[in-house]
Amino acid sequence: MDRDLLEKMFHAAVAQAQPALAVRQHLPGKPKGRTIVIGAGKASAQMARALEEAWAGPLTGLVVTRYGYGETCEHIEIVEAAHPVPDEAGFLAARRMMEMVSGLSADDLVIALISGGGSALLPAPAPGLTFDDEQAINRALLASGAPIGVMNLLRNQFSTIKGGRLAAQCAPARVATLVVSDVPGDDPALVASGPTIPLGGSRELARKYATLYRLNLPPHAHALLVGEDNLAPTPDDAVFRGNSVRTIASAALSLDAAAKLAREAGLEAAILSDSVEGEARDVGQVHAALAREVAMRNRPFRKPAVLLSGGETTVTLRGKGRGGRNGEFLLALAIAIDGLEGISALAADTDGIDGSENNAGAFADGQTATRLRKAGIDPLAALGANDAYGAFEAIGDLLVTGPTGTNVNDFRAIIVR
Amino acid sequence: MDRDLLEKMFHAAVAQAQPALAVRQHLPGKPKGRTIVIGAGKASAQMARALEEAWAGPLTGLVVTRYGYGETCEHIEIVEAAHPVPDEAGFLAARRMMEMVSGLSADDLVIALISGGGSALLPAPAPGLTFDDEQAINRALLASGAPIGVMNLLRNQFSTIKGGRLAAQCAPARVATLVVSDVPGDDPALVASGPTIPLGGSRELARKYATLYRLNLPPHAHALLVGEDNLAPTPDDAVFRGNSVRTIASAALSLDAAAKLAREAGLEAAILSDSVEGEARDVGQVHAALAREVAMRNRPFRKPAVLLSGGETTVTLRGKGRGGRNGEFLLALAIAIDGLEGISALAADTDGIDGSENNAGAFADGQTATRLRKAGIDPLAALGANDAYGAFEAIGDLLVTGPTGTNVNDFRAIIVR
Repeated sequence: MDRDLLEKMFHAAVAQAQPALAVRQHLPGKPKGRTIVIGAGKASAQMARALEEAWAGPLTGLVVTRYGYGETCEHIEIVEAAHPVPDEAGFLAARRMMEMVSGLSADDLVIALISGGGSALLPAPAPGLTFDDEQAINRALLASGAPIGVMNLLRNQFSTIKGGRLAAQCAPARVATLVVSDVPGDDPALVASGPTIPLGGSRELARKYATLYRLNLPPHAHALLVGEDNLAPTPDDAVFRGNSVRTIASAALSLDAAAKLAREAGLEAAILSDSVEGEARDVGQVHAALAREVAMRNRPFRKPAVLLSGGETTVTLRGKGRGGRNGEFLLALAIAIDGLEGISALAADTDGIDGSENNAGAFADGQTATRLRKAGIDPLAALGANDAYGAFEAIGDLLVTGPTGTNVNDFRAIIVR
Repeated sequence: MDRDLLEKMFHAAVAQAQPALAVRQHLPGKPKGRTIVIGAGKASAQMARALEEAWAGPLTGLVVTRYGYGETCEHIEIVEAAHPVPDEAGFLAARRMMEMVSGLSADDLVIALISGGGSALLPAPAPGLTFDDEQAINRALLASGAPIGVMNLLRNQFSTIKGGRLAAQCAPARVATLVVSDVPGDDPALVASGPTIPLGGSRELARKYATLYRLNLPPHAHALLVGEDNLAPTPDDAVFRGNSVRTIASAALSLDAAAKLAREAGLEAAILSDSVEGEARDVGQVHAALAREVAMRNRPFRKPAVLLSGGETTVTLRGKGRGGRNGEFLLALAIAIDGLEGISALAADTDGIDGSENNAGAFADGQTATRLRKAGIDPLAALGANDAYGAFEAIGDLLVTGPTGTNVNDFRAIIVR
C-alpha cells in the first residue's frame, strides 16, 4: 500500500489549511493610518492570533467565533457566541463591530478575517426587524430547499451586515478580506454571508425568488421585502473599490497542495471535486468505480495516478458501530475493489477527528477485505453495522493524528498504479 | 440544453449494443466441417437470430434464453428457461447441449453465443450433486458477500459446464465465443460463468476461499469440495488452444461509441466508469460534484467536455412516486447543479425502460429545478417521494424510446460547456 505517500498528501492538505501559515502568506500592505481587525467564523480567532503574530505594527479589533473556539490574543478582542443558532452575545458583538468601523478615514485599513459559521455569529437584523424575525427568516430559508446563492441573496436583504453591508460601513477605509472557505466553489460572497463582499442580485430578484421558492416569511418581514426602501439598501459598488479579497484556505487549496506533492512523486493528480456530497458508502462506490476504470483501462486518467476529492459526505445510521464518514467511505470502497491490485486509498477529516472516535480517518486497498475476513470480520456486516472504526482498528489501518487546528472538510486520495 | 447531442450519444450507445449489428461485425471464419451454435443468456436468442441471418453456410444448434426473450429462428433451436432461479427446462437444455457438442471433429466449429444471465439458464450439477444442491450452493455464495471472481471460482467447482467445461467437451472442435457482457471490466470468464472460457484458479484455491468466506455449503457439497477427484476436473489449458473469444457488446463498447460521437462534436470525452454502482441519488450527487468542478474550474477535464458512465445504480424506495434509477439520478443531479449554467445531462436505461413507466430516462440541466418549481413541484419533495417520473413528465423532459432490444445497463452523459 502507498501508505506513506497517502499520509504525506493528507498532511500537505492540512498544513495548507492552517490559519497561521495561510494568514502569513497573504498579509495586506501596511496602511498610512490605523489598522482595525474584524471578523467572524469558526477559524477567525485562530486567524486573528496568526495575524497578531505576523503583523508589524499596531492594530486593534474585534473578532467573533464559536463558543469553545476562542484563542488568546493581545490586541484583538475575541468574543465567543452561539452557532448555528445566534444568541445575544453575537448580536452585541455585531453592534460593537459596526461602531468600531464607523468614522474611519481613507488612510485606515480594515482587515476582515472571515470563515465558515460567521453568518450566525453576526446577527444584525435590518431596521424594523427583531432578532426573532431574523431567526424566523432563517428557518423559512432552510425549509425552502433553495440553493445557497438564493438563500444568501434573500438573507442579505434582512441584514445590516451581510452581503457587503459591513464593508460599506467601513468606507472610506480600505477593506482587505482574508477568507477561510467552507463553501463549494469558494465564492467569498457565500462564506459567512459575505459581510465585506458585494453580492450580485437586486431587491427585485430577491422578491422573485421569495415567490418562486414559496418562502414562508414572517408577515412582518414579507411586508418589508415587498415594500419600498424599508430595508437596508444594497451597497453601491463604488464603496468596494480599492478593497481586496483573498481566499487563504479552502478545500480546493488543500487539494492543490496534495496534488502538487503527488506530481512531484511522479503521479498524475486528478482533482475530482472539492465539494462531494452524498451518503458516504455510495460516494465510496462511485470513487471505487472510477479507480477501477483507471486500474483496468488506464482511463480517464493515466496510471500512475491519484484521484483527489474534498467535501463532506453524510452517514445514515443503521447500526450501532463506531466510525465516521471517512471510515464508511473507505469500507465501501474496500468492498468494491476487493481483490484488485494497485489501488490504495486514504480518507480522513482535515480537522483530525472522523466522527466520534480518536481517528482522523483510515487506509484501504484491494486486500483490506481479505485482511478483515482473516481477522474474523465480515466487511459487509461491518458496513451494515456502521462499524468502520472497529473494522479498521482490528487490522491496524486507522489514521490517528489528533485535532489539527483547522478544517476544510474531508480529504480523500486514491492512488492507482 | 444540449438535448440533441445527448440523445444522439444515447442512441449511439444503444446501437453499438444491438446484437444484430454486433454479431455481424464479429463473425468467425467458416470451418471445413460442421458449424454448431450453442449459447445461453438474455441476449442469446437475438444473437442466434442475427447469426442465422449473417452466416453463409449451414448451421444447427441450441440456445437457451429467459422466458419471454425467445426469437424465431430457422436452424437454431431456441429454448426458454427460468432466470434467476433455474428450472427443469434449463436443466434439460444443458444436457442436450452437452450431447450436441460431443463427438465433434477438429474440422468442426462451435459458435458460443454468451450473454448475461446464462449461468442460471444452464444448470448442470457435477456428478454426485443434485439440482437442489446446486441451488443451495448458489444461495450460500450470494449470502457470503464474496466478490464475483471468488463466487465464480467456487460455483464452477460444482458444475460440468461453467468455467470452460462446456468448451472442453467441444474438443477437438474449435470454439468461437461471442460475448454480450454485463459484468464490470468485461472479463468474459465472468459472463454467464464462462462456459467456454478457462478460469484461472485451482481446486485448492476454491477450498481456501470457502474457508475464508465462511461459506455455508450443504454438507454434501462441502464433502465433495474437500475430497479428491469427486468433482468435475478443471479443464486442461490445451483444450482451449485455437479457440477465440470476442466481446461484441458491453457497457464499455457502448460508452466508447458515445465518446467517439462526442469527440466528433468537439467535446473532450471522459469515460468515468462502465460499472458505477450505489444509491442512484448519491451517485447523482457525485456526478454533479464532478460536473461542477469542470464547470467552475475547468478540471479534471477541459471544457467543452462530456462525462460518460455506465453500470447499474439502485433505488431504495421511500415514497410512492413513479420512476426508475435514471430519473432519481437526474433529479438529485438537477438539485445539486441548481442555478449553474453550462451543464446538461441525460441518464437512461439502454434497454429503453427505466423502471416501471414508459420512459427510457430523462434530461436535466441547471434550470431543471427552477422549471419544476414553476410547474408547482418542489424538487426535493419529488425526490423524497421517489417521483422522478412525475417531475420530469411535468416539465416535458422525459426521454421515451420504447424497448431497444438490447441491454448494457444504464447510460449517463453530462455535457459541460
